[in-house]
Amino acid sequence: VTQTSTEPGQLMAREIAEQPAVFERILSSGLADIRAVAADIAAAHVRFVVLAARGTSDHAALYAKYLVEIVLGLPAGLASPSTMTAYAARPDLRDVLFVGVSQSGGSPDLVESMSTARECGALTLAVTNAPASALATAAQLHIDVLAGPEKAVAATKSYTAELLALYLVVDALRGGDGSRAGVVVDAAASLVADTAPVRAVASRFVDVQRLVVTGRGYAYPTAREAALKLMETSYISAQAFSGADLLHGPMAMLERGSAVIAVAPGGVSGTAIQPVLDRLIELGTNLAVVGPAVPTAGPAGSASASLARLPLPAGLPEELSPLAEIIPLQMLARELAVVRGLDPDAPRGLRKVTETW
Amino acid sequence: VTQTSTEPGQLMAREIAEQPAVFERILSSGLADIRAVAADIAAAHVRFVVLAARGTSDHAALYAKYLVEIVLGLPAGLASPSTMTAYAARPDLRDVLFVGVSQSGGSPDLVESMSTARECGALTLAVTNAPASALATAAQLHIDVLAGPEKAVAATKSYTAELLALYLVVDALRGGDGSRAGVVVDAAASLVADTAPVRAVASRFVDVQRLVVTGRGYAYPTAREAALKLMETSYISAQAFSGADLLHGPMAMLERGSAVIAVAPGGVSGTAIQPVLDRLIELGTNLAVVGPAVPTAGPAGSASASLARLPLPAGLPEELSPLAEIIPLQMLARELAVVRGLDPDAPRGLRKVTETW
Repeated sequence: VTQTSTEPGQLMAREIAEQPAVFERILSSGLADIRAVAADIAAAHVRFVVLAARGTSDHAALYAKYLVEIVLGLPAGLASPSTMTAYAARPDLRDVLFVGVSQSGGSPDLVESMSTARECGALTLAVTNAPASALATAAQLHIDVLAGPEKAVAATKSYTAELLALYLVVDALRGGDGSRAGVVVDAAASLVADTAPVRAVASRFVDVQRLVVTGRGYAYPTAREAALKLMETSYISAQAFSGADLLHGPMAMLERGSAVIAVAPGGVSGTAIQPVLDRLIELGTNLAVVGPAVPTAGPAGSASASLARLPLPAGLPEELSPLAEIIPLQMLARELAVVRGLDPDAPRGLRKVTETW
Repeated sequence: VTQTSTEPGQLMAREIAEQPAVFERILSSGLADIRAVAADIAAAHVRFVVLAARGTSDHAALYAKYLVEIVLGLPAGLASPSTMTAYAARPDLRDVLFVGVSQSGGSPDLVESMSTARECGALTLAVTNAPASALATAAQLHIDVLAGPEKAVAATKSYTAELLALYLVVDALRGGDGSRAGVVVDAAASLVADTAPVRAVASRFVDVQRLVVTGRGYAYPTAREAALKLMETSYISAQAFSGADLLHGPMAMLERGSAVIAVAPGGVSGTAIQPVLDRLIELGTNLAVVGPAVPTAGPAGSASASLARLPLPAGLPEELSPLAEIIPLQMLARELAVVRGLDPDAPRGLRKVTETW
């Protein structure tokens, strides 16, 4: 079936809107397989987790790193795939769970990393949207994220599907039954329907050439992924920093009027980003905040004038908040591209499957 | 002693120029201590390495991650410090070497991570420029990088001192005696003396507001650190991508005339970046290449017109190349700031020791 995009951003809009249905599908049709994979992992008594991915999926891997460290209490790291491919490293990976995350499952360097990790003694798991892919085949265990065909070059529904699948495998490993995740379906549905705040923020940022996105803890992967969406679709020089790293240097780039997006949901990540928000408001940046956290400091009157908000549904557990937070930012990336006269469905110079070695 | 900067960028210039002497000091006065630390690590038979750092030191930690994986064959990961601080995770760190890297040794979140890692069973090592610091005290093992007092806010000599100290501990762990590293003294001396290519590249980038830096493998930490220096000193929106990740999305931002720096030394990282260089030249970007690698593709005539080069001394082993590659880029960051009328010794909004929790 050849899919034709008749209107700029139509494919991306459709795939963004499918996210509640994808969440529902994973929770109904995918959960049993995910729990079986978790049982195999539990039986292996792994002690370390290494995650390998590129692009959008690397941000899903980063989310999983936080979950593994915080929820499972295991040290985790993101792989540098070139060490096993270009440099031919053969690390000792006994007691290691090696997880490859990829929408297409087709990136040659990830496939090679996965095969090498298996040869080096790791238990290998592929999380993909393509069960027949080379990455899925190379791994001992596979989770299908069930996002359905993704046509837009900028990944949206496959990202949140990867997040939910990774959450569910970690939840199963701690003895959960996945039922806490049910709230994401309604949260996503309310977010995809709420276009007014997104359009308001897009109109603030319509002429922006550079932008900083920040978040801490579980919200940091969201910041990274939002920056990538803005780069891919609107060609904005969007940079993501953890709130802590932003204060270690890059803050010097920012001045009155600089465009900034802060991901500030409830919970620890909302509390931890507060000092950064205070600095951004004090500086008079052109700030959009994702979430309910209310900034406190800054000269009287300056905050309300320079602050826009992308609201989040209340009551989401912090661990699950990344599955919702990114949705208004995906919508923003699409909207900004369209109002800038670009087609976010087909960014210049990109292909859906990137072949890197 | 109060140090006063009489001329913009004078402190940073002095500290850049000290790097050959710092390398010499580490190799003569520091090596014995480093080898003793390596012996303690070897005796512990660690199986996994976690590195924790912020800002510039995080790029030294990333360099060490490549060394640990490639040279020692151990899986390694960069810590997300907030998991143990903000989220109070208590991971099982038995058989883990936990390495904290920090110029000042004073960042409270790193100190807390170090203490927690020790409580959780890790063997702990602090690599700092401050042997009496809280981070050094919190760890079981300490390496002093002997860079001497660093006054400029933008770290330069402490970065390369961290790289050399980390190289030497890894080299000792594989049974080396550190003698291969002797070449970096002369390499650094020739680079700090070679200002003409730096001035030529600075004049190309004098009005640039956004810039991409790319590298692969061992050269990727250099790309990250160069981007941070440009952000800190010239307030340029500088973004670093591994060559592979650049092709997964951010390439869409680039067009004819876009400012790009590619770190392309010899060895595997030079070979691996070649397809990226070809794309950048074909696109007609305003490209500066650090290193000897000669780009091949692109329409006839377009390459030479759009390409500048920051040469590197020949004959550096690839593992040691990052100690040299960053030097012309530190010089470029300083030079660009000065020609833009800024003072790189005192970037707006930054302090030398950043306190983050």
